[in-house]
Amino acid sequence: MTNILYVVPALGVLALLYTWLRAGWVSRQDAGDERMRTIAGYIADGAIAFLRAEYKVLAIFGLIASAFLFYLGSTGEKSSPVIVIAFLIGAVFSALAGFIGMKIATKANVRTAQAARTSLSRALNVSFSGGSVMGMGVAGLAVLGLGSLFLVFYQMFVVSQNGSANGIEMETALEVLTGFSLGAESIALFARVGGGIYTKAADVGADLVGKVEAGIPEDDPRNPATIADNVGDNVGDVAGMGADLFGSYVATILATMVLGREVVARGDQFQGLSPILLPMAIAGMGIVASLIGILCVRVKEGGNVQSALNLGNYVSVLVSAAASFFIIRWMLPAEDLTIRGITFNSMNVFYAVLVGLVVGTLMSIITEYYTAMGKRPVLSIVRQSSTGHATTVIGGLAVGMESTVLPIIVLAAGIILSFECAGLYGVAIAAAGMMATTAMQLAIDAFGPIADNAGGIAEMSELPKEVRERTDILDAVGNTTAATGKGFAIASAALTSLALFAAFMGTANISAIDISNARVLAGLFVGAMIPFIFSALAIAAVGRAAMAMVQEVRRQFREIPGIMEGTGRPEYEKCVAISTQAAIREMMLPGAIALLVPVVVGFTFGPEVLGGTLAGVTVSGVLMAMFQSNAGGAWDNAKKSFEKGVQIDGETHYKGSEAHKASVTGDTVGDPFKDTSGPSMNILIKLMSIVSLVIAPHIAAPERGMAGHQEPQWQPKTEEAVRPKVKYADVTERATQAVQVLLGK
Amino acid sequence: MTNILYVVPALGVLALLYTWLRAGWVSRQDAGDERMRTIAGYIADGAIAFLRAEYKVLAIFGLIASAFLFYLGSTGEKSSPVIVIAFLIGAVFSALAGFIGMKIATKANVRTAQAARTSLSRALNVSFSGGSVMGMGVAGLAVLGLGSLFLVFYQMFVVSQNGSANGIEMETALEVLTGFSLGAESIALFARVGGGIYTKAADVGADLVGKVEAGIPEDDPRNPATIADNVGDNVGDVAGMGADLFGSYVATILATMVLGREVVARGDQFQGLSPILLPMAIAGMGIVASLIGILCVRVKEGGNVQSALNLGNYVSVLVSAAASFFIIRWMLPAEDLTIRGITFNSMNVFYAVLVGLVVGTLMSIITEYYTAMGKRPVLSIVRQSSTGHATTVIGGLAVGMESTVLPIIVLAAGIILSFECAGLYGVAIAAAGMMATTAMQLAIDAFGPIADNAGGIAEMSELPKEVRERTDILDAVGNTTAATGKGFAIASAALTSLALFAAFMGTANISAIDISNARVLAGLFVGAMIPFIFSALAIAAVGRAAMAMVQEVRRQFREIPGIMEGTGRPEYEKCVAISTQAAIREMMLPGAIALLVPVVVGFTFGPEVLGGTLAGVTVSGVLMAMFQSNAGGAWDNAKKSFEKGVQIDGETHYKGSEAHKASVTGDTVGDPFKDTSGPSMNILIKLMSIVSLVIAPHIAAPERGMAGHQEPQWQPKTEEAVRPKVKYADVTERATQAVQVLLGK
Repeated sequence: MTNILYVVPALGVLALLYTWLRAGWVSRQDAGDERMRTIAGYIADGAIAFLRAEYKVLAIFGLIASAFLFYLGSTGEKSSPVIVIAFLIGAVFSALAGFIGMKIATKANVRTAQAARTSLSRALNVSFSGGSVMGMGVAGLAVLGLGSLFLVFYQMFVVSQNGSANGIEMETALEVLTGFSLGAESIALFARVGGGIYTKAADVGADLVGKVEAGIPEDDPRNPATIADNVGDNVGDVAGMGADLFGSYVATILATMVLGREVVARGDQFQGLSPILLPMAIAGMGIVASLIGILCVRVKEGGNVQSALNLGNYVSVLVSAAASFFIIRWMLPAEDLTIRGITFNSMNVFYAVLVGLVVGTLMSIITEYYTAMGKRPVLSIVRQSSTGHATTVIGGLAVGMESTVLPIIVLAAGIILSFECAGLYGVAIAAAGMMATTAMQLAIDAFGPIADNAGGIAEMSELPKEVRERTDILDAVGNTTAATGKGFAIASAALTSLALFAAFMGTANISAIDISNARVLAGLFVGAMIPFIFSALAIAAVGRAAMAMVQEVRRQFREIPGIMEGTGRPEYEKCVAISTQAAIREMMLPGAIALLVPVVVGFTFGPEVLGGTLAGVTVSGVLMAMFQSNAGGAWDNAKKSFEKGVQIDGETHYKGSEAHKASVTGDTVGDPFKDTSGPSMNILIKLMSIVSLVIAPHIAAPERGMAGHQEPQWQPKTEEAVRPKVKYADVTERATQAVQVLLGK
Repeated sequence: MTNILYVVPALGVLALLYTWLRAGWVSRQDAGDERMRTIAGYIADGAIAFLRAEYKVLAIFGLIASAFLFYLGSTGEKSSPVIVIAFLIGAVFSALAGFIGMKIATKANVRTAQAARTSLSRALNVSFSGGSVMGMGVAGLAVLGLGSLFLVFYQMFVVSQNGSANGIEMETALEVLTGFSLGAESIALFARVGGGIYTKAADVGADLVGKVEAGIPEDDPRNPATIADNVGDNVGDVAGMGADLFGSYVATILATMVLGREVVARGDQFQGLSPILLPMAIAGMGIVASLIGILCVRVKEGGNVQSALNLGNYVSVLVSAAASFFIIRWMLPAEDLTIRGITFNSMNVFYAVLVGLVVGTLMSIITEYYTAMGKRPVLSIVRQSSTGHATTVIGGLAVGMESTVLPIIVLAAGIILSFECAGLYGVAIAAAGMMATTAMQLAIDAFGPIADNAGGIAEMSELPKEVRERTDILDAVGNTTAATGKGFAIASAALTSLALFAAFMGTANISAIDISNARVLAGLFVGAMIPFIFSALAIAAVGRAAMAMVQEVRRQFREIPGIMEGTGRPEYEKCVAISTQAAIREMMLPGAIALLVPVVVGFTFGPEVLGGTLAGVTVSGVLMAMFQSNAGGAWDNAKKSFEKGVQIDGETHYKGSEAHKASVTGDTVGDPFKDTSGPSMNILIKLMSIVSLVIAPHIAAPERGMAGHQEPQWQPKTEEAVRPKVKYADVTERATQAVQVLLGK
């Protein structure tokens, strides 16, 4: 039985092995001429400079959070100060995932540009290899980290105490493991928000002065903000997305494990442990499935890049589905599984996996429909751009709002169906099934910004026209995959949050969250408001930083002699510094809100009100994520539609027309929507749920059995029920005990 | 005891008497010269044409809804087909309220313009008198309708059956009375949505061609859409707002009465009826308090109009507070009131009224801060307009999102505090307290568009410059009162919905709505999505209608000879027809969603899931209402800031500058936000709650006592628990019974 505990981390090592080999292959590709290397060097340096500045700040955050966690871990019977170790490893792994992604992306970009000099298929090969390094690296680190930490904590808390799979010892082991997820998601938040602010400050700033005022094209080397803009693609789209999905992946597996503890499985071959191990097994299997999918991605010259990627994706999804069937049949007992009074069988669990795969696929398809060129939503914006800036913006806002309808119905149906399959364990397993192919998804996602960057380098290095044409083909496909990837990321965040939410309820020992209770309802309102203030802060930050960028670029155009003639060298590093500083400074407040609100609400009003708050955050966060991401994506492609000319009421409008200018306004409005505030929602809802799960044992309601009696409703809550549950025992004593626990025991 | 039952309708008659006398006074004022009368005639004709077209469609809707209600009323033991009568009276009264408002507004506008020829104080007097006619008319109709219908139903269902105040007979009487509110709110929805689409289609269309393309000023008589634009002010801002508040007012009183039935009051002087009568008594008293406030509004030449309005408002609020104290002390027993296990005393009820008054006032103040010229939020948008269209839009969106924070905290605190005072009855009473001064609020609100129209007429009639200056002073104040009025309307809608929500739970016989139940959670998601699709439909409708308007105006400019020289007469009525048709056509789908979703969800998934859906709609609707209304208001005033010139980074920008053009884009984006989709949210959340309340007895959970046992959570729901509860008995038999009930009994 212990064998399987080693298989999971081993699969993580396998993924990292692929990462290492493939990264080596990419590095050995030709990096082009002197000029290309120089430009790529600027971009790589800017990216590393940002990461260094960011990690410096995050190290301080990590220390503070560790101290708090240490205190928390030393109080209460179901936790342990060891959680600090898990937290720090999670944070370091998340940072490492971002670093790997960024490193490979800044190598693959210039090599893709160089490869595009020979052929499209070689360019795809290089850029997609870069993406796959990122995808496998993220999945590998997650599975290795979770798998080996579980192994350690299982020995430490359960085996050494002779505990049972459903006992308090296992509860403690999983609670400590939650620290890993907390670490991962905290870093992800800052990476996503900081990266999002960075990339859009540079992008908007570069466009406003470069394209609009100076009339020079995108990625023109005379624009001082152009390097910052290209750094931003790596910082935001690669590292941010990677950290986001790393967090989702870890959180989903973990939440399913926590719920798995509550599943009573009779007669399985892992001493009742199988429901806890299953999500890790599925994740490990998913790495293999993704690897198979990745190897299927090939394209001939003149072939269809999108089809090649789709093929790889579908292969990995189908392999996952088939493999899940056998894994579930093998691990779980065929009948008599029970969670919180609901009985189900192993096939029900498999059906829940299928629900997750279908929900993920549908979400991607719907997102693509709402953001793709030539489809009704984008066409409606194109049409409205003929009547000016305002109608373009109005049109996009309406599209974004409308785009929430189908995904929400799919999600609601997915929740109900997976719950029908296997209760809350079914909901979590659906999320785990959906996330199984994360490595493949991420490979496809990361390929986009690499191709985008390659195009930028080709432009700046003044490579022949056909090179840019080839990278443009890749870039166009990348825009579509970016949209579908966002749909996938939102769906995964939503299902993950629900799984975490369910795990939180179990750990906090509450069996109902009743919104007819005034405090819970108030919590629901406050929770639903958080995504609005979070978005407002992120958007306003981009606005401020972009204005600072505009002023700097204007200054350089004014003061550096010969800059417009291409003889004076722009001070790229000043623009990079503006983006870096703005991103680091502006990510603090939103980050603090996400981390502190659950702590304050939980300790002040208790677990049920916190549950209401989480529900509010999740519901409103999912809606705001879709609204903003899809509106932004639709505006972007409405603008792109003008590049080949569009027909509006029988007249053809091209780039440079009034309608096109209006569409640029829409695209600029959409930039912070789709790349800063929108994607941040995913992490916001997950992080708040994880923080709640971590503090859950400390604010738990008094023990009263799971499916049993519940206190009568409509009774005024007693003082005790709403007051903090943590016992502020002598801190020194606790700390001493904790150190003892850490050292010996 | 029966005396008080007559006092309430009598106070309604008093208000209508004031309405009649004051309307007569306004009519007797000088309506100006030939040209002014002609223009005012166009506007009045356009407004009436719209109402006629709208009511024709609504009559058909009324018939269908009546048939459904008749069927519903004939099934189930706690309802009666008499509900159809209540529904129809509610619908007719709501329509009448809109008609009175529109009629007086289209008379007062031209007379205000004429009065402005002599002095500011006379102009204020005429325009505010017009507003007060509307306010008193709405309040009078509401109190008269509710009061007299309650009198009738009380006799019919309770007295004649020897029923008790808390018995099933009273439950039936109140259920039937709900029909009045349903009628009122249905008409309100169509008035708000239709009116909102009308006014913004005309406004945006007129601006896009007139100001932007042809370069002629606002309200220029050469613009064919200008009459439609001015009609829109009446249709949307006057009739729409009136119907909205009429609906809120009625729904609040009613929900409090329904909850009042559940209050056990021992030893009151109305045979236990006092908690049911109290909200009506407070409403009646509020009419007197508003009357006193209205009489206090006076301004000397050169005086401060805003202060005069504030004085009147504060007087009415303070009188209400003081009077509530005595009414509560007189009506309720001092101690031993109980609702759903919570015990409270009469002073607690008074404190709940105070909470409502404070919440309403704070919401207005916060809304004003976020939308007023010269304050930080609007200044930030002004600043961002210097970098172009996109940053202006981004800035406004961020302001709108940020503006949700404080109101939500105030609201959440209000919910908790009023619940602490007197349970759910406290929440409802807080809403009732806040709505007590509706007549005064509406007088202030309706004054704005009258002044706005007066300015338009002055411009079109080419009156002397000082006239326009005087109406501009009134108009500027009107913009502020419009913003605070919106804050009040949102707050009232939110509290009303909560009261209705609580009443729904009681009537549907559910004691908890548990969001950890997968179906309820799915309902929450779907509910929260409704405001997004509703907004999308409303915004898209404005976009489409505005484009049709643009094309018509362009056609007229092209085809009518001498139109630009002022010699050819534009075909105003064609533009009026476009707005009218668009409004009527486009209000159908959103209306159908609001009406049908609760019915479908309720009958398919049962009351608890419907409760989750309602919670989702309410939370997300309140947030979307604030976001959209405040963003729109802030953009509007950012644009207005340019009229006197603004300083940005040491440079002064005036009208016509690039920054000003960007601010016009922001304002145009904000138009449908603040006048169509934003305010529609109020009615959406109320209407869905009322529909739920109406169907509640038919989907009710099996009887199981109020504060008693609850079924264990985490049990799989049995088939029966999630299936529709209505018994599809033989329809013919039911109908026969129902007719017998109607005729005999």
